[in-house]
Amino acid sequence: MQKFLSQAKASSRVLNALSGAKKNHILLEMAQALRDNTHTIVEQNAIDMENADINNLSSALKDRLLLNEERVDGMALALEEIAALKDPVGRVLDGWVNENGLKIEKVSIPIGVVGIIYESRPNVTSDTAGLCFKSSNVCVLKGGKEADYSNKVIAKVLQDVLEKNNLPREMISLLPDSSREGVTKLIKQDKYVDLIVPRGGEGLIRYVSENATVPVVKHDKGQCHTYIDKDADITKAIDIAINAKCQRPGVCNAMETLLVDKAIADEVLPQLKSAFDEYHTQIKGCDATQAVIEVDHAGDEAFHTEYLANILNIRVVDGVDGAIEHIIEYGSGHSESIITQNISTGEQFLNAIDAAAVYINASTRFTDGGAFGFGAEVGISTNKLHARGPMGVEGLTTYKFKIYGDGQIR
Amino acid sequence: MQKFLSQAKASSRVLNALSGAKKNHILLEMAQALRDNTHTIVEQNAIDMENADINNLSSALKDRLLLNEERVDGMALALEEIAALKDPVGRVLDGWVNENGLKIEKVSIPIGVVGIIYESRPNVTSDTAGLCFKSSNVCVLKGGKEADYSNKVIAKVLQDVLEKNNLPREMISLLPDSSREGVTKLIKQDKYVDLIVPRGGEGLIRYVSENATVPVVKHDKGQCHTYIDKDADITKAIDIAINAKCQRPGVCNAMETLLVDKAIADEVLPQLKSAFDEYHTQIKGCDATQAVIEVDHAGDEAFHTEYLANILNIRVVDGVDGAIEHIIEYGSGHSESIITQNISTGEQFLNAIDAAAVYINASTRFTDGGAFGFGAEVGISTNKLHARGPMGVEGLTTYKFKIYGDGQIR
Repeated sequence: MQKFLSQAKASSRVLNALSGAKKNHILLEMAQALRDNTHTIVEQNAIDMENADINNLSSALKDRLLLNEERVDGMALALEEIAALKDPVGRVLDGWVNENGLKIEKVSIPIGVVGIIYESRPNVTSDTAGLCFKSSNVCVLKGGKEADYSNKVIAKVLQDVLEKNNLPREMISLLPDSSREGVTKLIKQDKYVDLIVPRGGEGLIRYVSENATVPVVKHDKGQCHTYIDKDADITKAIDIAINAKCQRPGVCNAMETLLVDKAIADEVLPQLKSAFDEYHTQIKGCDATQAVIEVDHAGDEAFHTEYLANILNIRVVDGVDGAIEHIIEYGSGHSESIITQNISTGEQFLNAIDAAAVYINASTRFTDGGAFGFGAEVGISTNKLHARGPMGVEGLTTYKFKIYGDGQIR
Repeated sequence: MQKFLSQAKASSRVLNALSGAKKNHILLEMAQALRDNTHTIVEQNAIDMENADINNLSSALKDRLLLNEERVDGMALALEEIAALKDPVGRVLDGWVNENGLKIEKVSIPIGVVGIIYESRPNVTSDTAGLCFKSSNVCVLKGGKEADYSNKVIAKVLQDVLEKNNLPREMISLLPDSSREGVTKLIKQDKYVDLIVPRGGEGLIRYVSENATVPVVKHDKGQCHTYIDKDADITKAIDIAINAKCQRPGVCNAMETLLVDKAIADEVLPQLKSAFDEYHTQIKGCDATQAVIEVDHAGDEAFHTEYLANILNIRVVDGVDGAIEHIIEYGSGHSESIITQNISTGEQFLNAIDAAAVYINASTRFTDGGAFGFGAEVGISTNKLHARGPMGVEGLTTYKFKIYGDGQIR
């Protein structure tokens, strides 16, 4: 493991010296190579799919695992989008001359070696490899066992392009030991690895956070809320609520709890009920909600639960202040939205809520790298420091101060 | 402890709502209050000084501990400088409209509750309280036992100003339990504390890093180098080397190892020797150094040692590439400097070295908040993520995305 990682670390110096133009050229070659190898990739993926049948994986998991021509093309397109982004390293973020005449420049640089631990979807392999390469970071990828054949062939296709360009294959590394022990070793190698991004279930993330000596950016729980204010446009409110819950209930930026201003509860709750009924959403409500519509009961435990399913809590709150109180208590700092036409109420909510993404009049479902225009994402950070929200190439950089003197001493 | 911290956390919401003008007004009042209470502060400090005598503290420690009229005025001046800085929160760091028409703003916000663990110098109490207040962060201060009376009176003076302005005293909190157990508890309160900055000896920093569940920004070891290139202006080189080592050897940005290009070793080493002899610096050298000047031997262990004293390693290296190799092997990512008149060599060094601050033709001693123009510093970060180098008010902020829609759904 240490030899493998020291090679990865060494290749980061080579990568750091590549020009932006060269990196983009290689990313486009990688996109083409994915397309050229579609047949082989789909073939290897078929082995994973067979094993998925044997292991009785759920149909949802199998859908995430499946690769076909269209999906491989989507992977290639993502690399092309990443190539088109502005180079995130070498940017002068700030600069000034200090009182001693030193010219101080704050310049963006790559983080170094980034370990990414993920599950199921094999497109994450090429997406994260592309984002890391664009930001001059060496990636160490640890995909799920269920996608082993797919991940290996995708990595090989990308590595072959590196080799063709006389670059070390280690710039895009697959962790050789894909067991849990492999993860345990990886997250303690702070001499070689500069950042770990775990994407996956709560158990994995807790395990990594508690045991890593390498810094961790968590892609954690999304306990997301939508608050419908008394000054909301009710049509927009219902559309947004339905979208936030039902468009894809299994993802972290989906809504788990809907907060409704008590001033409009009597009017809005029946409308919400019939709208959600069309989507067969199971609704749980607080006492005040149950006084208006017939639903199961939701209490403290429900408000803490990330269902990741077509189940919704509804709570009646006392205006925007009540909504803010609820979110401070139950929110996970991921994505929160207010629906209101009132500027002051909207700004009050946006300012008071501490979350990676706070919305006014939009669905929380937009919190992802694609929707933000980042091309793709390494993860959606629920950390408060370093990177928050969708983590694209910028989140994969840090900075240093370059200081130009002419003999200055103190 | 939890009750104390939950009050601190609650006061952070009040602080977050204060305008920049109000914060500056209060900072200026705090500066005036320090001046008005000089007599009381010096009196309380005298108790610490008496205890220092009883406990046989070293004269260096006693010098750091001492407060007099001039030093209290310096503390007041630092608060005034901090008041004059631009408000670091609420700044729009980036902004764009995405393809769905959502207006996305990346806005700077305070981190929340920041715990600072430090030793000896009581001015850190007012400096860090001022930096945290300016950046709308609640601070929880844990000073050294030896400065207990000084820290308490300084905190009281600042808290009285808060109270006079009808603000909770908890915005500037002193940890009630100033024992090691107090630290142990503090660093595990991730529900209430958002960041810990430990400043102090290696033992403290290791202990905090290994046991904290709260994110830690380390103020760690400074294994700083100066490299004299064959194209250096030798007069500048010697002045800078002397300054970097001798002006204040006990601080983290002082040089520990001097690297000399072998192309000029025969010429420069004797000049360096006689210059350092005037400062009574103890020199240790590699074999090639010993071949030119008479000094003790320096090997692997010496190159890893942060002396924090008037002791210097000298190593002869093979040009800028050799210097870069040495620094990659032994550097701690703090501050590194190259002395050269050659633009290409200088840029090669600045780009290849991964440290918080990389200098060309200047002393590493400039790596601090004051010299960078930050007014003061909470610490000098040797972390690679979140904040690097001198950590002023900007390092005490994070960000969120504020997103303005008009009914957008996916």
